[in-house]
Amino acid sequence: MMSVVFAVATVIFSQNFSFFPSVCLARSLLYNNAWLRADLIPIAERMAPVKHKILVLSGKGGVGKSTFSAQLSFALAAMDYQVGLLDIDICGPSIPKMLGLEGQEIHQSNLGWSPVYVESNLGVMSIGFMLPNPDEAVIWRGPRKNGLIKQFLRDVYWGELDFLVVDAPPGTSDEHISIVQCLQATGIDGAIVVTTPQQVSLIDVRKEVSFCKKVGIKVLGVVENMSGLSQPLPDVRFLKPSETGKHTDVTEWALQYIGERAPELLKMVAYSEVFDSSGGGALKMCQEMGVPFLGKVPLDPQLCKAAEEGRSCFEDQKCWVSAPALKSIIENLIPKRAAENGA
Amino acid sequence: MMSVVFAVATVIFSQNFSFFPSVCLARSLLYNNAWLRADLIPIAERMAPVKHKILVLSGKGGVGKSTFSAQLSFALAAMDYQVGLLDIDICGPSIPKMLGLEGQEIHQSNLGWSPVYVESNLGVMSIGFMLPNPDEAVIWRGPRKNGLIKQFLRDVYWGELDFLVVDAPPGTSDEHISIVQCLQATGIDGAIVVTTPQQVSLIDVRKEVSFCKKVGIKVLGVVENMSGLSQPLPDVRFLKPSETGKHTDVTEWALQYIGERAPELLKMVAYSEVFDSSGGGALKMCQEMGVPFLGKVPLDPQLCKAAEEGRSCFEDQKCWVSAPALKSIIENLIPKRAAENGA
Repeated sequence: MMSVVFAVATVIFSQNFSFFPSVCLARSLLYNNAWLRADLIPIAERMAPVKHKILVLSGKGGVGKSTFSAQLSFALAAMDYQVGLLDIDICGPSIPKMLGLEGQEIHQSNLGWSPVYVESNLGVMSIGFMLPNPDEAVIWRGPRKNGLIKQFLRDVYWGELDFLVVDAPPGTSDEHISIVQCLQATGIDGAIVVTTPQQVSLIDVRKEVSFCKKVGIKVLGVVENMSGLSQPLPDVRFLKPSETGKHTDVTEWALQYIGERAPELLKMVAYSEVFDSSGGGALKMCQEMGVPFLGKVPLDPQLCKAAEEGRSCFEDQKCWVSAPALKSIIENLIPKRAAENGA
Repeated sequence: MMSVVFAVATVIFSQNFSFFPSVCLARSLLYNNAWLRADLIPIAERMAPVKHKILVLSGKGGVGKSTFSAQLSFALAAMDYQVGLLDIDICGPSIPKMLGLEGQEIHQSNLGWSPVYVESNLGVMSIGFMLPNPDEAVIWRGPRKNGLIKQFLRDVYWGELDFLVVDAPPGTSDEHISIVQCLQATGIDGAIVVTTPQQVSLIDVRKEVSFCKKVGIKVLGVVENMSGLSQPLPDVRFLKPSETGKHTDVTEWALQYIGERAPELLKMVAYSEVFDSSGGGALKMCQEMGVPFLGKVPLDPQLCKAAEEGRSCFEDQKCWVSAPALKSIIENLIPKRAAENGA
């Protein structure tokens, strides 16, 4: 039986509407202390056997944050750590699909809600497991989302964990304030921020880094995802353009033509810069904001496919274009942190 | 001087935590009626001279929703309509950049807040114009976001408009409930839903369509964006792979090699399916859910570049891979709607 949660959020807009949102965090922290206090102790108790807590954030959506969270969790589990992956994207949970757990349900025991396990050392929790119909919209305002996040932290029985990876939705709103408020007392290792090289994504990532600084969360580093599309040339399709805009697929002819006339090409990787990175991309942004740059991961259709199918990209050679980049980012990040705290 | 807004949101979670979010919309509508009523009349007055109101939604972020909203607005303005573009993505406003209006500020007059104008018939409103520092995070919980959306609808002086395009953040939460509640009394033409062919995006789009059905908003249609990457072959870069994962750029050699041995290739368009669409993509989803499919727009680096630079993709020939697709979608959608209501 779930316990009763009363959430009262009272927000008073000042008469002179403030154009300066920076003052609002302090306010919102203040408003919520009352309804938080009652929950912080049971949350702290639940989180006590969790050695490391890592948030995965992004300013903008669709930058591959959930794919990164999923592959990070797969990688940590393959390194024999005990891993929990918590999806706090309430309105658009992608994690069940990306871990190959669609259609699974959570169960309750005396100890609390049981995560859904991919393997014995990789447990997952998401609102996706609670929906009677996957097409159903979760039309929730903030307070209700906050209530569920608290329940995830208070009522899920993870057991002993080396790592709890928290996949947050894009932005800097209810979910983010709530997870930080709830976890901060128990210690958060820090946040990994995922972006693409696009200016529109980097603008939002700057906001995300500023959020982390404001709430006192360490930025473990920034990952530049979809850093150009890399694909072996034989995987590319060839179209013959026409003026009407209807192109004809001539791939079969083109591959034969290349094979006969220019066979060396077939060994090459075709690379397209999808998002303009002439502004310097994430690396420059990291230098300017004084946060670590973790590396670039190319946009790899095989990685997208692995994510769609809920597979680890490290298990076979299919993702050879992107997996080494991801692996080196994770290995740089984790042994260091694990060694620091003896995980 | 802005008027005083008191927003009190009281949410009580039932003792038996409901796994069925579908009941929650009715509840949230109920809670908010009191604080809404006072604002609906001034909002209705402001919206009276606006002929058509179109929401642009997406389930997942990063699918090109803001790019679509921006290009739709450019296209409508080029058709000599009077157009307003309202960005209600409070935590990650991309619209100012995508309209080439970064660094602009809004002004106030006796009539209200003045939009920022790209041209005399294309006005834009976004929280992006209100931030003293573009890196600043807007760390706002729901009620404050809702308050600003109401202010946008009540206090912005658009004048006579043929079209008000509303660019919403991804999801089905505070912003979406608020905009629908505020505009529904004055009539919303409907929503355009943007997605990519990926399953993870389509799952969220189904939620978005279910949201529209629940709140009584007509789905004008679904746009499949990033439907494969199309690029003229001479724009592709060629990399020679190595076992260490560090590839060497051999584009210059490759283009010369192709020119000498296989020149026919240079006239072709290279096409890569970035996101796996083997599940049937948006078209199949539309058939299943009984909503119109508007068409596919390829992932075109030139369109991304136009968006980054705040340019219309219809003005020159640079976006020849994607602009015709976008244009045909818009022309199919708009003349029909405009004719229906005499815009």
